[in-house]
Amino acid sequence: MRTVDWDNSNQQVLMIDQRLLPGEYRVVSLEDYHQVVDAIRKMVVRGAPAIGASSAFGMALAANASKSESIDDMRKDLSAAAEELIAARPTAANLAWAVERILRVAKKGDLKDAQDLRDAVLDEAQRIADEDVEINKRMAKHGAALMGENETVIHHCNTGALATVDWGTALGVIRMAHVQGKQPHVLVDETRPRLQGARLTAWELEQYGISYEIIADNAAGYFLNSGSVDRVFVGADRVAANGDVANKIGTYMLALAAKDTDVPFYPVVPTSTVDLELAHGDQIPIEERDPSEVLGLEVGGKRVTPEGANARNPAFDVTPNRLITGIVTENGIVSPPFEVNLSLAVQKSES
Amino acid sequence: MRTVDWDNSNQQVLMIDQRLLPGEYRVVSLEDYHQVVDAIRKMVVRGAPAIGASSAFGMALAANASKSESIDDMRKDLSAAAEELIAARPTAANLAWAVERILRVAKKGDLKDAQDLRDAVLDEAQRIADEDVEINKRMAKHGAALMGENETVIHHCNTGALATVDWGTALGVIRMAHVQGKQPHVLVDETRPRLQGARLTAWELEQYGISYEIIADNAAGYFLNSGSVDRVFVGADRVAANGDVANKIGTYMLALAAKDTDVPFYPVVPTSTVDLELAHGDQIPIEERDPSEVLGLEVGGKRVTPEGANARNPAFDVTPNRLITGIVTENGIVSPPFEVNLSLAVQKSES
Repeated sequence: MRTVDWDNSNQQVLMIDQRLLPGEYRVVSLEDYHQVVDAIRKMVVRGAPAIGASSAFGMALAANASKSESIDDMRKDLSAAAEELIAARPTAANLAWAVERILRVAKKGDLKDAQDLRDAVLDEAQRIADEDVEINKRMAKHGAALMGENETVIHHCNTGALATVDWGTALGVIRMAHVQGKQPHVLVDETRPRLQGARLTAWELEQYGISYEIIADNAAGYFLNSGSVDRVFVGADRVAANGDVANKIGTYMLALAAKDTDVPFYPVVPTSTVDLELAHGDQIPIEERDPSEVLGLEVGGKRVTPEGANARNPAFDVTPNRLITGIVTENGIVSPPFEVNLSLAVQKSES
Repeated sequence: MRTVDWDNSNQQVLMIDQRLLPGEYRVVSLEDYHQVVDAIRKMVVRGAPAIGASSAFGMALAANASKSESIDDMRKDLSAAAEELIAARPTAANLAWAVERILRVAKKGDLKDAQDLRDAVLDEAQRIADEDVEINKRMAKHGAALMGENETVIHHCNTGALATVDWGTALGVIRMAHVQGKQPHVLVDETRPRLQGARLTAWELEQYGISYEIIADNAAGYFLNSGSVDRVFVGADRVAANGDVANKIGTYMLALAAKDTDVPFYPVVPTSTVDLELAHGDQIPIEERDPSEVLGLEVGGKRVTPEGANARNPAFDVTPNRLITGIVTENGIVSPPFEVNLSLAVQKSES
């Protein structure tokens, strides 16, 4: 099934619980938008496009649950839900992008009654989910065209089907190259502290039959410097107008090492992740998560950190545009100067 | 006790078993040099200076165990032991440095008999261990003089008392600053895959009462870019004549981020770690360890990686000299050009 989906018979949101993978595959049903907020916060679902679609379906749950009979009252209920959904996690642009798309539909003048609004909201949420898959495949084709045969690529975090509604962004590119018979090999950054690479990306690559090896994040520089890596593909949580990219913590150092060793570095980003209202990456809010994500590691059944240890846990960092070779979007590869070319790519999607 | 020590009454080598910390503090006794080889390989003891001293004591065990009654025959036995000890781990320069110091003593012409040689070997091993502590304190004073009050520093791997005979190299600098009342705060890289930072450095800092927070290695770039970090201190396993530094995997990306954010980056290195026979860092052999070190992580009692996953596990990388602000040695801070100044610092120790 899709990572996030709408269960029409029960009018619920379905999600793969990503906290349990790869040990257990479990689908959870959410019947209330507060549960969606909670699922996003606790990372039952994660990945910018996936939480975008989740919040859109959350809006559909909010519309269904609203007792308001007038369109105007229901719009107020939707605005309240929108605020909570957007606040669930601060960094990913897709959350606000999806919720605002729903709100724009809800504001349209041609809605007859409350039920008509409910239907319009659900239709738009479903459209966002369907488009995500289609957009991912377009990005994947653009990205895969950059790749030759038998390339070794480094990949950070998880950007596959599990980070999106389906197919994936950066991992979607690698998957497309695999489908095209190019036989890519992936060095999978394990991606501390949440280990999305070791847990989710490795699990996906197993499913697809793509060759891979897990590496400690620390080892990426070694492999880049060894001359054995052809390309780096990463996702993004928010991209500023100048092409600065907020992505999973560690991306900045990975990009530095790629630059230092002349290995091309490509974020793979749907235009829904681009936030043209922010001129620079340093304006992107960076979430700091609970220290327990860093401190909770075990080896051989024993916790590794001493009693009383504290931790800091920023979840994202910003990679400055000067380290980026190109940004793969559904409208093609955006090259520098990103200040100019990125907004052109976004406009293509809006036209 | 010291990390590595000689038990004179039992004629054994004592070591703190570092694989068990911080959960358990256990001292192991080794009565045979093969056990020392094994302890170095399995990382019961680790850290370039500590495995240097361990191998010296291993030579003392080999001399004691040798049944040879002639000095020449015993020299052959010592050469065989030397080979095995040096081969235990390939990257750290201190292993060969310490063993060769023992062999030089064993070759001296003024030895009367086999027992005299045994005594000379043990004396030299003890001298190597004692000097290590004294050298660390000299480095610590040179390094601490660089620091102001209330500095925040990033530290990678473990370079404290546990990585040496006692006191420490990079962590020794921070410890000296603490003793001097400068109140340093340490961001501790957890240092995947073996987690020497999260396990050993955090444990040492708890003992010393030094303020610290553990971070995922991925987060170092974020903090460096935030402007809140004053300095980075790391250790080294082998330094080439031009100042290229082989150190724990991840050091290269950390150095790149320090350079990119104009934060001073200092390896803290006894001259015994400098290998003037290697012109460049790319000639330093890099050990690749067992994939299980990457794959064996658990969270909540469950292994995180999928069944059948494979991994790559290089244990060190090389930081090029252009990323290094200065190298702290027992003979002072060595500044660029390292090609010239590093060999001058080494000569000071030899004179």
